[in-house]
Amino acid sequence: MEYRISPRVGSLQSSAVRDILKLTQGKDMISFAGGLPAEELFPIEAVRAAADRVFSTGKGALQYGLTEGFVPLREQLCGRMAAKQMKVTIDHMLLTTGSQQAIDLLVGVLTEPGDVVLVERPTYLASLQVFALHGLQVVACDSDEHGIIPESASELIAKHKPALLYSVPTFGNPTGRVWSEERRKQILQICTEQQVPILEDDPYGDIKFHEDETYPSMFSMQDSVDGGAVFYTSTFSKTVAPALRTGWIIGDTSVIRMMAKAKQAADLHSSTLDQQVLHQLLAGFDLDAHIAVISKDYKARMLEMDQLLQKQAVDGLVWEKPKGGMFLWAQLPEGLDAEALLKAAVPKGVAFVPGSSFYAREPQRNSMRLNYTYNTGARTEQGIVRLVEAISEFTARS
Amino acid sequence: MEYRISPRVGSLQSSAVRDILKLTQGKDMISFAGGLPAEELFPIEAVRAAADRVFSTGKGALQYGLTEGFVPLREQLCGRMAAKQMKVTIDHMLLTTGSQQAIDLLVGVLTEPGDVVLVERPTYLASLQVFALHGLQVVACDSDEHGIIPESASELIAKHKPALLYSVPTFGNPTGRVWSEERRKQILQICTEQQVPILEDDPYGDIKFHEDETYPSMFSMQDSVDGGAVFYTSTFSKTVAPALRTGWIIGDTSVIRMMAKAKQAADLHSSTLDQQVLHQLLAGFDLDAHIAVISKDYKARMLEMDQLLQKQAVDGLVWEKPKGGMFLWAQLPEGLDAEALLKAAVPKGVAFVPGSSFYAREPQRNSMRLNYTYNTGARTEQGIVRLVEAISEFTARS
Repeated sequence: MEYRISPRVGSLQSSAVRDILKLTQGKDMISFAGGLPAEELFPIEAVRAAADRVFSTGKGALQYGLTEGFVPLREQLCGRMAAKQMKVTIDHMLLTTGSQQAIDLLVGVLTEPGDVVLVERPTYLASLQVFALHGLQVVACDSDEHGIIPESASELIAKHKPALLYSVPTFGNPTGRVWSEERRKQILQICTEQQVPILEDDPYGDIKFHEDETYPSMFSMQDSVDGGAVFYTSTFSKTVAPALRTGWIIGDTSVIRMMAKAKQAADLHSSTLDQQVLHQLLAGFDLDAHIAVISKDYKARMLEMDQLLQKQAVDGLVWEKPKGGMFLWAQLPEGLDAEALLKAAVPKGVAFVPGSSFYAREPQRNSMRLNYTYNTGARTEQGIVRLVEAISEFTARS
Repeated sequence: MEYRISPRVGSLQSSAVRDILKLTQGKDMISFAGGLPAEELFPIEAVRAAADRVFSTGKGALQYGLTEGFVPLREQLCGRMAAKQMKVTIDHMLLTTGSQQAIDLLVGVLTEPGDVVLVERPTYLASLQVFALHGLQVVACDSDEHGIIPESASELIAKHKPALLYSVPTFGNPTGRVWSEERRKQILQICTEQQVPILEDDPYGDIKFHEDETYPSMFSMQDSVDGGAVFYTSTFSKTVAPALRTGWIIGDTSVIRMMAKAKQAADLHSSTLDQQVLHQLLAGFDLDAHIAVISKDYKARMLEMDQLLQKQAVDGLVWEKPKGGMFLWAQLPEGLDAEALLKAAVPKGVAFVPGSSFYAREPQRNSMRLNYTYNTGARTEQGIVRLVEAISEFTARS
């Protein structure tokens, strides 16, 4: 039979990153493409011990759970949120299958097809997929190194009456940028006044390279959680391990309740084995000390890549040194197309994500995102050598 | 701020079952409401050992995985499907967060808001929630004890041009009924001719009380998987444990690929820890022997409830003795409202799901669904006594 495929799904681009990941499954491929954490740092023995404690609690551990998520884990997360000046109760919180699901569910609750969503430019590509699937029109605010430019936000809000503003203010994906505190306050104020809810996506906030600096969330700056503009989502994928697929979102109780209703239909609930493992892990493991170890290691990897790129001194290649997170955002000489470069790079055994993936429209074609957390040492060096070789040949041909 | 909630989500009824579950969390409540498996039967030591083997494979076990699901588990599932005459490759299969997510994703791919979906009458209530969230119009076919009546399906297909037919042909929820082989063939033929895809939902098919009887799936009856009418979904929730939240769906490769794209946006992928645990479990544990144990035990529990109800001999209460699955579907005397009865039953310490939850409209108000798998022995007896007491008082007042 011929199937009638929903046009929204049919026209959806498969994630460029995941398609490249498939390409790069050959052994000799060095990938700077994915947003993969370093496996060497996964606290697998602590996770194993936590799982063992879960099984020791008895067979009830394997029963159906609450849609909202395992209560003791939500309680622990309330404590962790409070340490960052985000004061919430478990009723303000929904556990999700990674923070990706939090984005999807909130968008489902707060938007209708045809609505406008405001984003940074560039922005997280899998959020663009969510917006496309929900039939939203994506409008990008002008941004600089301090975050979204308030005048641009004000103007676009007045013009489009957006249903949501989506942002990654701390170590943005793909740029690695951090919004200034002043900008956070300004955007929060504008959105509060204009009644535009904000989804503050913070998967990387813990992975910071300057211990003394703090980057307060917009969520922590609002007067009240209930009725507040900001919904904040984060995940254990980068701080513990991605396979456990556990994220959370906090915000207004009534909206969280609606999201739980939508989640009932979507999957009843996320893995409670994973949630219980994380609960047991947090009870017996110093996650903050572990995060400090990861951050230190990732900083070293970032500096390693930065120095390799400096050493290779590619004419016209520029990048910002990120203050945290997992990505280095680089610009090729004006006029070079990173998608075309990728096609030249893959046969040489190196991959990255072309910057165009992170734009809903009018992409900046000469940019690319390099992940520095997955590889290290000789592999990073070899990868950068291959990349630079590809760029040189490509430039010579252009 | 005031939030603009999507009308589809805002008007969604929270699942009656889950709301009742919240009510029944008090210790002295005996619940026949949820679809909970018997915890005593969870193979927790085998799951523990499987988890331990997963951690022994190394830290890569905790990395991001494929959206389509863990390949070795998909391979094992292909083998299990082949044993039921469903011949598929891993490209015909997507792993999901329970079969609930399979329903949600397939509906997202094959329907547009405003489309009609055909269902049995009554049908699985959480599928009704999915249809409501996707803005579908639900039209119920006439059914009898052998399944959907072909003439009704033909007539409604001609009238509504539905985008999908959804059914639970083996041990339906809530009725516990099994479609006859003849009916399966007829419905498959009609839908194939009329180009209406079928979602065959089979969470309970393994839990059967007559070893010698087989109930071939409609999926197994079609000529070809690619281009075929039937998408088949099942889950480990009832045969291993619900907490592992692992289901699967099989069908046409191109539609499965579209579902994977939609799943990328929804949650990137389901828990790969759970998927790897199930892979290790299947490698070292006789799941079919375990299913035989569960089935035997559930049959005894069903007979126990059946006999208790017979013994109490409530005037006008009738029910069908199911051939498998987890539910007994009972009719109160005409004119009695099971929702009102529930309100009288809960204070007495017993709960069930009123049948009205299983109808998109024009509910049969005097029916109720009783789960017999979660309780046993004295608790079942006490629960039935309380239920009958509630019915008697309720009848006296009516």
